[in-house]
Amino acid sequence: MNCEDFSKLPIYLIGAGNVATHLGIAFHRSGIAIKSVWSRNIDNALSLSKNINSDYTDNLNDINNEKAVYIISVPDIAISNISKTLGKNNSILIHTSGSTSIDILQSYSENYGVFYPLQTFSKTTKDIEFKGIPVLIEYSNNLVNELLISWCNLIGVKSTNSDSEQRMKLHIAAVFVNNFTNHMFAIAQELSETYKIDFNLLRPLISETFEKIKSFKPKDIQTGPAIRNDHDTIKKHIESLSNNPDFAKIYSFVSESIIQMHKKEK
Amino acid sequence: MNCEDFSKLPIYLIGAGNVATHLGIAFHRSGIAIKSVWSRNIDNALSLSKNINSDYTDNLNDINNEKAVYIISVPDIAISNISKTLGKNNSILIHTSGSTSIDILQSYSENYGVFYPLQTFSKTTKDIEFKGIPVLIEYSNNLVNELLISWCNLIGVKSTNSDSEQRMKLHIAAVFVNNFTNHMFAIAQELSETYKIDFNLLRPLISETFEKIKSFKPKDIQTGPAIRNDHDTIKKHIESLSNNPDFAKIYSFVSESIIQMHKKEK
Repeated sequence: MNCEDFSKLPIYLIGAGNVATHLGIAFHRSGIAIKSVWSRNIDNALSLSKNINSDYTDNLNDINNEKAVYIISVPDIAISNISKTLGKNNSILIHTSGSTSIDILQSYSENYGVFYPLQTFSKTTKDIEFKGIPVLIEYSNNLVNELLISWCNLIGVKSTNSDSEQRMKLHIAAVFVNNFTNHMFAIAQELSETYKIDFNLLRPLISETFEKIKSFKPKDIQTGPAIRNDHDTIKKHIESLSNNPDFAKIYSFVSESIIQMHKKEK
Repeated sequence: MNCEDFSKLPIYLIGAGNVATHLGIAFHRSGIAIKSVWSRNIDNALSLSKNINSDYTDNLNDINNEKAVYIISVPDIAISNISKTLGKNNSILIHTSGSTSIDILQSYSENYGVFYPLQTFSKTTKDIEFKGIPVLIEYSNNLVNELLISWCNLIGVKSTNSDSEQRMKLHIAAVFVNNFTNHMFAIAQELSETYKIDFNLLRPLISETFEKIKSFKPKDIQTGPAIRNDHDTIKKHIESLSNNPDFAKIYSFVSESIIQMHKKEK
């Protein structure tokens, strides 16, 4: 039996972007010490380090002299190269990406895993409450599993086992429910500015949209011109958007998709 | 000075769909009596009439024998024909459509207006709290204006003057913030079923999406592969959606629109 305990190893946070920032703060608040933050951009590393009482660096060689745990929260395309440097000493490599397979880490260490919090993180937003957030975990061996579970317990998140394929699928669904809905709001906001409409008039409608899907299947509460097959209104709206061909295109395709989804049902 | 008071006239509700149902209930609860409900479908008229303690009919001739107020809440395409029948006696014709001009009513009476509640209404959903909902109003003369304002005051909604052009533009913005976001949720739900993912895992993310736009401009809190210009992930996701070409198309166009919107900013 391997009696090693990864929870005694120093933890380094690799990255200082949206996810790294919120993770770092959540770890720090839960009493999990981050020894140092690395970022390509030293100002970002410094800035995050102040919030989590850690060292900071822009040089990976400063922080790979001992066996350690690395939380790699960088753009997906950079994960492999960074892991190559950090994997020596059989260190523990944990990436936080939704759509990157765990397998990308296997050439660099025996000890690796994924810790993917299913949430939207912007540096500009307020502190996010981590409690109750689902974190999808995956691991190369039981010691990594224990480490990830202990983090989840300390932070108060809900750990869920997920292989890389399922995780990417959940990421795709997350893109629809967050990234794309937010873009619909952004379009409405831009239209409000163009048309000189008070965006606040839309807020009760936005609230109701979110309230309804707490209790109903979204498909069952679809409303609007598309589901009514109200082609006259759709046409009027698309004509009215002619100065925003990009928004007109979105309007047209999403309406068509609503019509198709509900045609299937009938 | 015209001393007529339209608030003494009987009120008929024309239609028994989503909007008519919720309006009827809101009027009834606020002590504004509806004399009768008309629907092409007598069962729908009966069903709504029970909720609002009114008569019901499927025959317009039953209800146009006196000067009256007609709240016309039917598919846009049917407004004109119905108004033609109901406008005799110079009755008050009020339609509830976002994207139909007030002018459609002008051939049928001197007294007409629009009462458009900016909200999403489904018969299947719970009772909607009307208080605070913006209602966009438009009117042919001051007597109609007074009537509409008195309804707004009794129901507790916020009346906002809006001409037909502005109302349609607000309706377009409403389609984006409600109909289209709801469809994004519906797609995610359908993907969850296909992929055997628990949709509830997405709920904290949905809550956060909604919480964030209470305090931030949606454009400023956009996250996800598109705004990161993460073309590898976008490509992976679109490939993974190859069994749902319709969803893949939405994914691709909305991502492209996010990229374009933020390119403009830089």
